[in-house]
Amino acid sequence: MTMIEGGVCAPAGFTANSVLAGIKKGRTKHDLALIVSETDCTAAAVFTKNLVKAEPVKLTQKHIADGSARAIVANAGNANACTGAQGYDNALRMAKSAARELALRETDVLVCSTGVIGQQINIDCIEKAMPLAVSGLSRNGNVRAREAIMTTDLVHKEAAVQVEIGGKTVTLGTMAKGSGMIHINMGTMLGFITTDCAISSDMLKTALTDSVERTYNCVSVDGDTSTNDTLIILANGMAGNKIINSRGKDFEVFVSALDLLNTTMARMIAADGEGAQHLIECMVSGATDDAVARTLAKSVISSSLVKAAFFGRDANWGRILCAMGYSGQLFKPEGTSVYFRSAAGEIEVFHEGVPLDFDEDKGKLILGEKEIGIRIELKDGKGSGTAWGCDLTYDYVKINGDYRT
Amino acid sequence: MTMIEGGVCAPAGFTANSVLAGIKKGRTKHDLALIVSETDCTAAAVFTKNLVKAEPVKLTQKHIADGSARAIVANAGNANACTGAQGYDNALRMAKSAARELALRETDVLVCSTGVIGQQINIDCIEKAMPLAVSGLSRNGNVRAREAIMTTDLVHKEAAVQVEIGGKTVTLGTMAKGSGMIHINMGTMLGFITTDCAISSDMLKTALTDSVERTYNCVSVDGDTSTNDTLIILANGMAGNKIINSRGKDFEVFVSALDLLNTTMARMIAADGEGAQHLIECMVSGATDDAVARTLAKSVISSSLVKAAFFGRDANWGRILCAMGYSGQLFKPEGTSVYFRSAAGEIEVFHEGVPLDFDEDKGKLILGEKEIGIRIELKDGKGSGTAWGCDLTYDYVKINGDYRT
Repeated sequence: MTMIEGGVCAPAGFTANSVLAGIKKGRTKHDLALIVSETDCTAAAVFTKNLVKAEPVKLTQKHIADGSARAIVANAGNANACTGAQGYDNALRMAKSAARELALRETDVLVCSTGVIGQQINIDCIEKAMPLAVSGLSRNGNVRAREAIMTTDLVHKEAAVQVEIGGKTVTLGTMAKGSGMIHINMGTMLGFITTDCAISSDMLKTALTDSVERTYNCVSVDGDTSTNDTLIILANGMAGNKIINSRGKDFEVFVSALDLLNTTMARMIAADGEGAQHLIECMVSGATDDAVARTLAKSVISSSLVKAAFFGRDANWGRILCAMGYSGQLFKPEGTSVYFRSAAGEIEVFHEGVPLDFDEDKGKLILGEKEIGIRIELKDGKGSGTAWGCDLTYDYVKINGDYRT
Repeated sequence: MTMIEGGVCAPAGFTANSVLAGIKKGRTKHDLALIVSETDCTAAAVFTKNLVKAEPVKLTQKHIADGSARAIVANAGNANACTGAQGYDNALRMAKSAARELALRETDVLVCSTGVIGQQINIDCIEKAMPLAVSGLSRNGNVRAREAIMTTDLVHKEAAVQVEIGGKTVTLGTMAKGSGMIHINMGTMLGFITTDCAISSDMLKTALTDSVERTYNCVSVDGDTSTNDTLIILANGMAGNKIINSRGKDFEVFVSALDLLNTTMARMIAADGEGAQHLIECMVSGATDDAVARTLAKSVISSSLVKAAFFGRDANWGRILCAMGYSGQLFKPEGTSVYFRSAAGEIEVFHEGVPLDFDEDKGKLILGEKEIGIRIELKDGKGSGTAWGCDLTYDYVKINGDYRT
């Protein structure tokens, strides 16, 4: 498995582009992105579980129902959520506009939006910008598109990986955006994965759903689940491998590549959490099973008190135990050990249910690093799991205290 | 129903006191409180649902199992949580020490602790201070005791109320502490209720459990549920009313008085949320039933994004819809209307699923008040419910970034 450059354009047959359509007043970054495959793709997606779904989510759910698609059009600057019938019509117009320029059926175009909730989107400027967006599609357009979906993100997020499947080189690429409104039910506002792997739409759906459980669903920035969260994968089969249509070795290799991409994005999203100074990775082992381990880890990295303690470089393991305790999962506190680790070393602070008299200075040193690990060992079984989060800072409050206006 | 002075000492037969035992270095406020009834009481309690329970919680659960008690001893400065067998032994020593001085059985003494997690409590100083604490018990000791249980609280919290039950004047009093680690599973670190009502321990338990559902369980400050949360009620029967041992008019009057006290405490805890500048009250009506309405209201006031928006005086109703959407409850977004209200007026921002073009200046004015209401009208049924929270501020992060050291 080799990490390579190129993001969503790394797999054969994919192009991308973006333009500045002018969706949100004052935005100077591009705001309209396209990802297109030159041939038909099997397609799968995971959507927000929020009952209040943005209009493009509703449209994309329809368009992907047949398991196939060719293009994704995404905008920043407006979420097109809570916008009623007019909003749905605008999402449809986005799809139609892209389909017209690309000479595709509108049902093969998937639509995603991110930005402010509850304002009608400026569809005229999107329609006006579409010809330019399409005419500029290129094999290195990922470097533009990855910027065009950013909102409060500080860094763009992309990755690509190559694996060998059935003697053929298969490539997967991804880009994502997200730094607020991120939670464990769906870890990103928007994530797009492209691959030239030949895989049936059923197995593609299975691979995506399984992988999300271990990756995107284990990220939390602030406990909120957005109206727009969408993760899409398009597979155009151009790698020429024997089509994957059942579980087995080929499928496993594909899933491990997918896991690597999604874990990379999950970590980047947590590290870029709004106002975050630290990436926090919580690893639980010795749990009853993997699902219990993940739930415990998620509860820890979701706790406002734990998050604020990391901002203060305070080795406050009591809050970690407390967060595990209200996770709803069973574990034996008396068999629990807790460690903090980072590039500056590792320190045990709680050993099998008993507080340790640890070196506070070493604790501060470890917690001073950008990436911090919490390692929790239980004595309940063989389950393990990891979740990613960030600290809670003054800047999180500042960013979210005045986002809309 | 008349609100009166006197807190936990307002009902006949109750005395209270506090002293500075020196449990936490540097604390100048009293840290050891006692509440005692001169006669036997029926007793009931609600405890944290956190799997990791503090040692005094485990002890008090045992001591109250028979439905009777006479005294409560509570300390601030150390939570005696995650402290293992030694911690349990220390909680027992607190009970024994108070029992010895009061000439009671140790099983009639209930123990509560609040403060930092994971450090052994200084039991010697507590034992040494106990004779002074007991000798100073008085009918106006509530004014000391209510201060002694405060940690990061900025204001003490107490209330008392009189009602007529069966021709007799019955009094209920309460005091509570809590401003962090507060969530919907149990709304306070510590709450104590005294009453001279004659009521069976079964009906006392029923009254407390029902009332908590509508009051303490509808408060959230930061989404964390503590290891120590405890709410206790003692009823000594000295009002001389005919004993309440079944549902009926007398029981209803008692419960409405209890609701009033608990709602008062719930609002005070939310208003005193760590770093809070605003009390936020979310009222949902027209829901399928009361439980659905309460869950929706709790989801709104628990959202970090909603809380940060109120800090910024931003009428960001989109985040409110979003938080309702991930509450796990069903409602019709297209039948939903949202209003903001305060002493400065009321404004509708979302009408039956459609965003309104409201006056932003009026919005800022309304959101500038100390107490802010969010009114949500649904068209799903006749259920209603209220939840209380506060805004998320720089100070919350500051307070919790460095609490332990």
